[in-house]
Amino acid sequence: MEHSSRGPVPHGHVTLVQVAQRAGVSAQSVSNALNNPDRVAPETRKRILAAVEELGYEPNLSARALRNRSSSLIAFKMRPARPDKASMLMDDFLYVLNASAVEAGYHLILCHAEGGQAGEIKAYRDLLKKTSIDAFILAETHRNDDRVAALRSWGVPFAAFGRSWDGDDEMAWVDVDGRAGTRAATAHVAAQGHTRIGHIGWPDDSELGQDRREGWLDACRARNLDTDLQAAVVDSLENGRQAAHHLLDAARPATALVCASDTLALGVMRALHERGLRPGVDVAITGYDDSPTAALVSPGLTTLRQPIDEVGRQLIQAVDNLMAGDPRPPHHVLLEPELIVRDSSLPGRRDTR
Amino acid sequence: MEHSSRGPVPHGHVTLVQVAQRAGVSAQSVSNALNNPDRVAPETRKRILAAVEELGYEPNLSARALRNRSSSLIAFKMRPARPDKASMLMDDFLYVLNASAVEAGYHLILCHAEGGQAGEIKAYRDLLKKTSIDAFILAETHRNDDRVAALRSWGVPFAAFGRSWDGDDEMAWVDVDGRAGTRAATAHVAAQGHTRIGHIGWPDDSELGQDRREGWLDACRARNLDTDLQAAVVDSLENGRQAAHHLLDAARPATALVCASDTLALGVMRALHERGLRPGVDVAITGYDDSPTAALVSPGLTTLRQPIDEVGRQLIQAVDNLMAGDPRPPHHVLLEPELIVRDSSLPGRRDTR
Repeated sequence: MEHSSRGPVPHGHVTLVQVAQRAGVSAQSVSNALNNPDRVAPETRKRILAAVEELGYEPNLSARALRNRSSSLIAFKMRPARPDKASMLMDDFLYVLNASAVEAGYHLILCHAEGGQAGEIKAYRDLLKKTSIDAFILAETHRNDDRVAALRSWGVPFAAFGRSWDGDDEMAWVDVDGRAGTRAATAHVAAQGHTRIGHIGWPDDSELGQDRREGWLDACRARNLDTDLQAAVVDSLENGRQAAHHLLDAARPATALVCASDTLALGVMRALHERGLRPGVDVAITGYDDSPTAALVSPGLTTLRQPIDEVGRQLIQAVDNLMAGDPRPPHHVLLEPELIVRDSSLPGRRDTR
Repeated sequence: MEHSSRGPVPHGHVTLVQVAQRAGVSAQSVSNALNNPDRVAPETRKRILAAVEELGYEPNLSARALRNRSSSLIAFKMRPARPDKASMLMDDFLYVLNASAVEAGYHLILCHAEGGQAGEIKAYRDLLKKTSIDAFILAETHRNDDRVAALRSWGVPFAAFGRSWDGDDEMAWVDVDGRAGTRAATAHVAAQGHTRIGHIGWPDDSELGQDRREGWLDACRARNLDTDLQAAVVDSLENGRQAAHHLLDAARPATALVCASDTLALGVMRALHERGLRPGVDVAITGYDDSPTAALVSPGLTTLRQPIDEVGRQLIQAVDNLMAGDPRPPHHVLLEPELIVRDSSLPGRRDTR
């Protein structure tokens, strides 16, 4: 047999690394052969799949089986509900995260915490004392994130939805490229002929907000457009409304407003409603998040959709790899959001009746 | 001591029933003294609290401690995300349900299922085989609900968000009175002077939809208003939009439309947008759910808010009682929704700038 001279046939549960040794390739190649087949030469892929079959390797079961425990729980802290905000549905994200977890042999357990990062860390510790938790998924990462230090000190595997803003390469994370998204939204309104494009975003202490503002600056600079029309406000409909009135009252007012969130963009729509102006026809508006509201308002709101299915899958894959003792560097995945164009950014009102 | 002649001081963990025996009252009275103090005479309450203190009864810990297990898990199945719908945030509900669970010493574990009730039952069984689950919370109950039969046959405690539509008194449930809510919304638009009030609801196979329609019928009949303007459609923006055009094209058209969901009401808003009519000023609109979108659209959407905090608390209380072996009949709690009036149902447009 071609492979019999390679690594030994292991007993018991088979790991990715054992498959790699057997096939005489790197662990990365095995992962690619299974997850991104087009990155591996057909011959190599064939050899890897033979090793997978020979050893009876089951990618989704490996981490779980290795641990040989019954709980298989991944903990996730829900954030409090945010009334009057058009956020991406945490709902949707939880659903896909849980679906991915179940497919990989885990279940999500919800964690409850109040009182900021300190409260969250306390809740994690309490949960670990009480229940056997296999891994944590964090959301909304920040610079100097104390949760990361705490989980590390306890030796618990974790992955974050949100990059390590301080360049911590050791943390596994999955994130969405807000800068590229806002750049695409700005380019889209510029393509409709707008030259006075304003931005309504968040204060500078928000890493996410800074990232999204950079995309607007990129697109304006690439077109030699002024960048004097900007506002940095805490995320709320009312703040978006007031910022819009301000930018529309300028001596050379904005004709398009690119926003860091759907909530801010809906505030802009309210301001236009109050001024008797028509979204799209009179002032172009874009949001960010593709909240359910974006599709439901009239006219519909142009916005950026985060690929949360893929985010969920990648996060579970990341913690599964960590639990399996995968020797590869931690998962760092930056995904592109998708621009969803609706009538709020288009000059011609389309009557769909 | 006044109480020494009553029931014995129990050893180990103290139950509600033991407190009741000690104080010489019913278990219901103990529960009332702790949860609804105004339903108990002050003297009785004093006696009960003395027994609680004497025995060291801890209401939230009792069920958990009695079982003497470490998992303390309550399972809940998430429903798939529903794009293009303005539902009550399952998000919010999950958050408050989990907060209540944690406060009572439990954690929520999420269940994933596909393929209707059969799939859900299979997922429950798989979960029970794999993990120690203490109780289940069901959502969206129906007539002849197979999940109820399955959980009962396994002897697992459960409570439902949604009443037992076939009058099954043995099931613990918490629900919101949709009929009273829709009645209040209809009365509200009638009070604005409307006499041609239409209803856009769901097909008859939806118990929830029937219940909400009854409230509209109640209010119209009480005022001798015609009930010829009605539509029964599957819940979607597009169906709401089409139904609205139909009811506005009638020989004697509707001047107000009471809807069974925010999604349908947002479809009505889109139809008005297409006809150049103003919500509130030209046609009054009400929804149901107080989805985040209702507060974010311009003008804001009048709707009914479900008291989900209370729903979450009561559901956890219901399963906690069951696990504690509480001898009282199962929890049946019907809560009132709150009418949230915004500009979509008011004749004068209020400029809030």
